[in-house]
Amino acid sequence: MEISSFQDGFLEDVLTFKSSVRVGIIGATGAVGLEILSVLEKSQLSLGSVHCFASARSAGSQLPFKGESIAVETLSSQSFQGLDVALFCAGKKVSLEFAPHAVSQGVLVIDAGSAFRMDPTVPLVIPEINPQALKNHQGIIASPNCSTTIMLLPLFPLHQKVGIKRIVVATYQAASGAGKLAMEELKKETHAFLEGGTFKRTVLPHPYAFNLFVHNSPLGEGGYVEEELKMLHETRKILSDDSIHVNATCVRVPILRAHSEALNVSFHGPLSRADAYSILKEAPGVKVLEDFENHRFPMPTDASCHSSVFCGRIREDFSEKNTLGLWVVGDQLLKGAALNVVQILETLLKF
Amino acid sequence: MEISSFQDGFLEDVLTFKSSVRVGIIGATGAVGLEILSVLEKSQLSLGSVHCFASARSAGSQLPFKGESIAVETLSSQSFQGLDVALFCAGKKVSLEFAPHAVSQGVLVIDAGSAFRMDPTVPLVIPEINPQALKNHQGIIASPNCSTTIMLLPLFPLHQKVGIKRIVVATYQAASGAGKLAMEELKKETHAFLEGGTFKRTVLPHPYAFNLFVHNSPLGEGGYVEEELKMLHETRKILSDDSIHVNATCVRVPILRAHSEALNVSFHGPLSRADAYSILKEAPGVKVLEDFENHRFPMPTDASCHSSVFCGRIREDFSEKNTLGLWVVGDQLLKGAALNVVQILETLLKF
Repeated sequence: MEISSFQDGFLEDVLTFKSSVRVGIIGATGAVGLEILSVLEKSQLSLGSVHCFASARSAGSQLPFKGESIAVETLSSQSFQGLDVALFCAGKKVSLEFAPHAVSQGVLVIDAGSAFRMDPTVPLVIPEINPQALKNHQGIIASPNCSTTIMLLPLFPLHQKVGIKRIVVATYQAASGAGKLAMEELKKETHAFLEGGTFKRTVLPHPYAFNLFVHNSPLGEGGYVEEELKMLHETRKILSDDSIHVNATCVRVPILRAHSEALNVSFHGPLSRADAYSILKEAPGVKVLEDFENHRFPMPTDASCHSSVFCGRIREDFSEKNTLGLWVVGDQLLKGAALNVVQILETLLKF
Repeated sequence: MEISSFQDGFLEDVLTFKSSVRVGIIGATGAVGLEILSVLEKSQLSLGSVHCFASARSAGSQLPFKGESIAVETLSSQSFQGLDVALFCAGKKVSLEFAPHAVSQGVLVIDAGSAFRMDPTVPLVIPEINPQALKNHQGIIASPNCSTTIMLLPLFPLHQKVGIKRIVVATYQAASGAGKLAMEELKKETHAFLEGGTFKRTVLPHPYAFNLFVHNSPLGEGGYVEEELKMLHETRKILSDDSIHVNATCVRVPILRAHSEALNVSFHGPLSRADAYSILKEAPGVKVLEDFENHRFPMPTDASCHSSVFCGRIREDFSEKNTLGLWVVGDQLLKGAALNVVQILETLLKF
């Protein structure tokens, strides 16, 4: 693919593919991998080829793509030959092991996982927010944690207007964040519960049928789980502002594929509900859903399989100066992962 | 029942039943009513009689109680004859219509619903917190909203220690708060979803199978729903402190009968995690569940059918001075409603 021109100029020379882009998906049979395929199908990217990689267990299976099917190949250090870009979504361990092989072969890595996000040499990018960070990549670009992306997409234009000081956020996270098998387990365990049967969990650590639990990422400093600390550190990196505070409580709820978040955001200056509403109505990638008459605000069923992050319940917090409440819901697999990864590639190519 | 003595002295003459207490349950066939019966069965109250009332539709049905059965009677203005206490749990409309009949016949009303909570002549009581308020009753005593009770039970001893300034809370509320039929609807709709069938909702306004939505109470001032405003106003009344701020986001999640709440609490002075932990370990009605090694913190499956409010994840908020995070989970039907109602009666009788 020939890079023609960049509106803003800053992306020149970032990528100079000479033909249509040849993409590899590392972890193609997982929940995010399948979603990347689906997003690529609808994308206007000029694709030279699409290769799908997974562990040996999945090799040989066929994945449908644009009316044809792609055979899944076993990932190895040799898998990157003939690719321009490798989209990684097979977990931290696989990224840590195989991304260096891709980079050494001149293949650009876009990683959906957490392996490189806080590496100072790796841009952490939400294209609507910090596309300029792409310019500094050294072969690896990271896509943020799903909860961070879904939170920041609507908050960014408000941050531009008055500056965010502190965010208190409670999440309502879907099974999809723990993978395809977790989504299946939620359905099977719930079915067994309703039928009065027994069920043996193999994916998630706690009962999930009509139950919820603290996000099952490892415990980190101060009693916070890693998911909560990611929301702090990634926010600071993406917004290039280490003074921003984020206090998160991350919870896994029995929802299939959209995350919801209750936000309480303190700004450096005044921001009325009306002003925030106007800004959010125009925000890229954001859809405001506030129908007071019908008591309709964003729900996971609204956001599931949609590319926009839905937001609503923009309300002034009478308990604290310069503070707004906000309710956001976004598809964890799309903007939370696959869509953002593909958008990073699209932004690099800006055709 | 003869009132013998009151430890604190303040409850003398509050109730002077001459024999065992004769109780009527108004709304006995609902989720809270059935739970009140169950709590009364296990209570050490000396019960003279228990009468069950409901709408004409349920009249004639039998409810099991202590190995026998109680016939459900149709509620009328004459239902209160021969009772000492009427426990109301049939919704606001029924309380507004029938509580005055009970009071005029000298029958004490304990109301689980919202009809009288903010009436300045009506004590709003969580027995572990403000039993002294019972003394001033004029025939009606109110039990708080479930979300308020579950939040305040663990917060009260911390408030006593350093004084609460502001609470930011996001709730994860169970179906039971919308009644027995809502619990059934959640199960039926989820079953239909899993079987690929269709389902026609009759109770809740939004899809509930693997979905969540803003609490379906009416919208009040500032874009807050009534449930959220209750958490503010009831907290101020129960703690007798109108300077406390509460900013709530109330959400209905697909859980059957326990509410969870993510709390961010700012105090007037410093309170370490260690001090808060020690205080909560000794707090009446509270059970601390923090098992870092096994990543076990309170879940609805822990709290369901338990009288204690579980709490954990006591952690310092590094983003704000004198602020702690806390995660609480309590059975909505027990401490959130039925148990608190019966405890109010037990406190009045203090035998």
